[in-house]
Amino acid sequence: MSLFKRYLPILTWGASYTRDTATNDLVAAVIVTIMLIPQSLAYALLAGLPPEIGLYASILPLVAYALFGTSRALAVGPVAVVSLMTASAVGELAAQGTAEYLGAAIALAFLSGLMLVLMGVFRLGFLANLLSHPVISGFITASGIIIAASQLKHIFGIPSGGHNLYEIVVSVASHLGETNLITLAIGIVATAFLFWVRKGLKPFLVARGLRPRLADILAKAGPVGAVAVTTLVAAAFSLGDKGVRLVGDIPAGLPTPTLPPFDADLWLQLAGPALLISVIGFVESVSVAQTLAAKKRQRIVPDQELIGLGASNIAAAVSGGYPVTGGFARSVVNFDAGAETPAAGAYTAVGIALATLFLTPLLTNLPQATLAATIIVAVLSLVDLGALKRTFLYSRSDFAAMAATILVTLGFGVETGVVTGVVLSIALYLYRTSRPHMAVVGIVPGTEHFRNIKRHVVVTGSKVLTVRVDESLYFANSRYLEDRIYELVAERPEIEHVVLMCPAVNEIDASAFESLEEINRRLSDSGVKFHLSEVKGPVMDRLERTDFLHHLSGRVFLTQYQALCALDPHTAHVSEARTPKKSAHSDVWAGPEI
Amino acid sequence: MSLFKRYLPILTWGASYTRDTATNDLVAAVIVTIMLIPQSLAYALLAGLPPEIGLYASILPLVAYALFGTSRALAVGPVAVVSLMTASAVGELAAQGTAEYLGAAIALAFLSGLMLVLMGVFRLGFLANLLSHPVISGFITASGIIIAASQLKHIFGIPSGGHNLYEIVVSVASHLGETNLITLAIGIVATAFLFWVRKGLKPFLVARGLRPRLADILAKAGPVGAVAVTTLVAAAFSLGDKGVRLVGDIPAGLPTPTLPPFDADLWLQLAGPALLISVIGFVESVSVAQTLAAKKRQRIVPDQELIGLGASNIAAAVSGGYPVTGGFARSVVNFDAGAETPAAGAYTAVGIALATLFLTPLLTNLPQATLAATIIVAVLSLVDLGALKRTFLYSRSDFAAMAATILVTLGFGVETGVVTGVVLSIALYLYRTSRPHMAVVGIVPGTEHFRNIKRHVVVTGSKVLTVRVDESLYFANSRYLEDRIYELVAERPEIEHVVLMCPAVNEIDASAFESLEEINRRLSDSGVKFHLSEVKGPVMDRLERTDFLHHLSGRVFLTQYQALCALDPHTAHVSEARTPKKSAHSDVWAGPEI
Repeated sequence: MSLFKRYLPILTWGASYTRDTATNDLVAAVIVTIMLIPQSLAYALLAGLPPEIGLYASILPLVAYALFGTSRALAVGPVAVVSLMTASAVGELAAQGTAEYLGAAIALAFLSGLMLVLMGVFRLGFLANLLSHPVISGFITASGIIIAASQLKHIFGIPSGGHNLYEIVVSVASHLGETNLITLAIGIVATAFLFWVRKGLKPFLVARGLRPRLADILAKAGPVGAVAVTTLVAAAFSLGDKGVRLVGDIPAGLPTPTLPPFDADLWLQLAGPALLISVIGFVESVSVAQTLAAKKRQRIVPDQELIGLGASNIAAAVSGGYPVTGGFARSVVNFDAGAETPAAGAYTAVGIALATLFLTPLLTNLPQATLAATIIVAVLSLVDLGALKRTFLYSRSDFAAMAATILVTLGFGVETGVVTGVVLSIALYLYRTSRPHMAVVGIVPGTEHFRNIKRHVVVTGSKVLTVRVDESLYFANSRYLEDRIYELVAERPEIEHVVLMCPAVNEIDASAFESLEEINRRLSDSGVKFHLSEVKGPVMDRLERTDFLHHLSGRVFLTQYQALCALDPHTAHVSEARTPKKSAHSDVWAGPEI
Repeated sequence: MSLFKRYLPILTWGASYTRDTATNDLVAAVIVTIMLIPQSLAYALLAGLPPEIGLYASILPLVAYALFGTSRALAVGPVAVVSLMTASAVGELAAQGTAEYLGAAIALAFLSGLMLVLMGVFRLGFLANLLSHPVISGFITASGIIIAASQLKHIFGIPSGGHNLYEIVVSVASHLGETNLITLAIGIVATAFLFWVRKGLKPFLVARGLRPRLADILAKAGPVGAVAVTTLVAAAFSLGDKGVRLVGDIPAGLPTPTLPPFDADLWLQLAGPALLISVIGFVESVSVAQTLAAKKRQRIVPDQELIGLGASNIAAAVSGGYPVTGGFARSVVNFDAGAETPAAGAYTAVGIALATLFLTPLLTNLPQATLAATIIVAVLSLVDLGALKRTFLYSRSDFAAMAATILVTLGFGVETGVVTGVVLSIALYLYRTSRPHMAVVGIVPGTEHFRNIKRHVVVTGSKVLTVRVDESLYFANSRYLEDRIYELVAERPEIEHVVLMCPAVNEIDASAFESLEEINRRLSDSGVKFHLSEVKGPVMDRLERTDFLHHLSGRVFLTQYQALCALDPHTAHVSEARTPKKSAHSDVWAGPEI
């Protein structure tokens, strides 16, 4: 594939772009535009930015993704979690409403874009793998709770602050006396309406004869209805004069080209948050894109997705926007509405640009409480506490990582939360593999199979100790391997041979290799021969590159049965003479049981 | 075992302590004492501390280890690498020679002792496993080079400084004009003599009829000879007046009980270095102790060793010493000299206490150049550049970690070096396992074995795709697994069944489990059934706790052969009809080759 084609997927899909495709893309774009207008205003509010910044982040970034992205249905733009992370990162460096705050948000988009592009070019997408599913799920749940709590102030129409759940709740509680009742009424009605739209509108419309797909798309447009109605009400009754906070004047017109502030100190402070935003945005975006691509047996290219999202963020930065990524709900709507190529995103950009030019005066009287209601309803669908229970049932260790991520995110904020989750996942994984399952095995009578002596009726001799290790051998478990073998040998003074059975050993790294040499040396010193059996091809290739096999006091056997026949023919003979015990032979699972 | 017996190993070995054992321990103690006196002075110099601190660190800590340690031959006290790390950690907080510097060194010993004890009580010894062999080896090599370079100033008799190799070498070079020629002469002669003692004295003595073991021990006492001769020469010619730097007056008498400075800020700053010193000291110490224990088929208890070393460091702190651990050369001498129990260490402590009381006046005229020569000769034996080549041949990835550890340690100091090594080892391990080896397999004709289609002559059908994955499935590789499977399916539009063959899968964590669910869902969406085969017992147990097996579009097969017979009887039949190809059947290694 040419370099152009690799880095510009538009050359691939653009070549076969037809009038029919264009029509489908246009229809999807209209629907997504209607959905995106209130979302982009609301998420800008969540990020602590003026509403127009949300619109700006929904124009050029969409065009950039259409050029560089590989997903045919992903709808890029401001999203809830990334907006929260932006507010958290930028909020530490500048006060909301200042030019510095906006500058830092733009710099964050630029840095994040740069990182994504570099990760794509150097194919570092695997970094995203460090975020385990439970950590992501926990992080999203906790972010959803924090976001919903942070919007309460708009619903009540009170001033409030706080960086973690506790502070937010305390701050809201202490200001409750200042509640603006009209704002609260709008907030509650809008929230209730939007919940009903989400759950009840579609069945309602279907029952009245609408096609389900159309009913679904109409239901997704609910926020626009709420925006229109509350804006009209606010304008009609001049609610702005009665203490209801409105969006206010939004500068009309397209964004002017900007450059992010080039300030080494600022960039250094934003580097960590930018990396987290990049990785989390990428993970969320890629998982939606993959799900949608799979439905049509299409494929996305993760490394090129990094470049697509990176280009979007750089485009956001140079047009006065803030960090963006692929949105979940929005992409599903785009897909369901029939989008066939990334061109749909470009058409959406045109839609938002038109809105920015002509619609902004209509939004002056839009109550902030309506936007807050939009956010609350959207993010509460991200909260999945049931995942805690499912994960608990499946794996205690994953549950620990998930619970820690949720608690630390709620208690100490998004960055600390996600870093804690990642570090804990890695630590728990290393801990688990540092104590691999090892079993002393014996032969199942009448067969050539070897099984754990603690679980099965097997035959063993007194001179040969066979240990099976069920894990790759590497630095984190090499000392444990040594310890266990010395321990087993110390318990059995009559032992003359130790056989390490390696059918599940996919790798032996340099540390484990030295441990094997050490085991061989120490066992030799005390007159015990050390053998290996069932070593895998690639592992054996590597051992053969060293002189280990010359030092080895024993041998390497192709199968454990051959080892037994060579080292302890008596036991092999005894085993052969006995008919297999049904209980041992009729195991359901052939692999090595615990 | 009672709690007392668990935490006080002395109750176990003390119960059978005989007069013979005592004699053997005493002989070993005398020899180790003679070796330890110049070492403890020299390492205190290396740590930037007054010489008597080295002696203090060789009294109470040895008694503490005798009470709490499990190794019967480990000789605890000041060692080179830990002294260097102490100098590096404390040097950032205070100027050498000040009370703050000494106080910080004492606090470092206390903190490190506390951490070791806690790690022992909570059985956190596995933390030491994070230091892979190549990282330790690289770190020790680089530390040896830095230590040797740092002693050059004493050999030349010049002032000098620097925190990394480059700074040290530049600083020495810039001061060369101030060289004190008498000091240089002493330094060169002492160094040459000590090298000869190390390499040539033993053969020399053996050729003259001495028993090899005695010759060996005498050779180890070489530094005492160098100390005695140079001290006499310095005293006889009043070299102190001629610009030769001497050890000077050492306060006679036993250490007085001290308390480390309790200063929260200081402790916080020392916490990182203390952790590194604890872990590195523990790793070094345990590996010597294990080697020596294995020679007599004895065992040490790593978690109790943590408590033993922790108690030693706390003892060092309360008696005005600095961080200690088990020394390599010293422990080997102790073992070879016949030490049978930790009591030998307690007797050594008595020896050093007597030296502190009565010998210090004799050491006033000891030239610092002699101590520097002792250090240089001792640490250069730690430098093992050959390990770089061996590791390179065995594993590029381990080589990268080792080379990075050496370069960063030389260039940026010990703490940065070891942290870089650990992080890089973990990152490289995660990277390797994040792209596990996966092979499309087919049946070897005439057998029930399945092999990689790229490596072997095998039979495959067009409707069943069988993929074998050679790694546990966990968060770092679950997305890769998904990608690869979608890719393989996208390449084969005629596929109806995908079988994932799991004989090498030791674990499926929650992330990988969700990926399997997602693969199942997406394949179902496109009309492909998903099956598993050869799933291990423990992995299957866990899958059975979920409802995955109910959602699974396909089945779980005991063996891959059963899967083939059920899903594609035609191919199984074709395979059966053909005689096995010799090339495929006579593989040397039975495991799954690449």
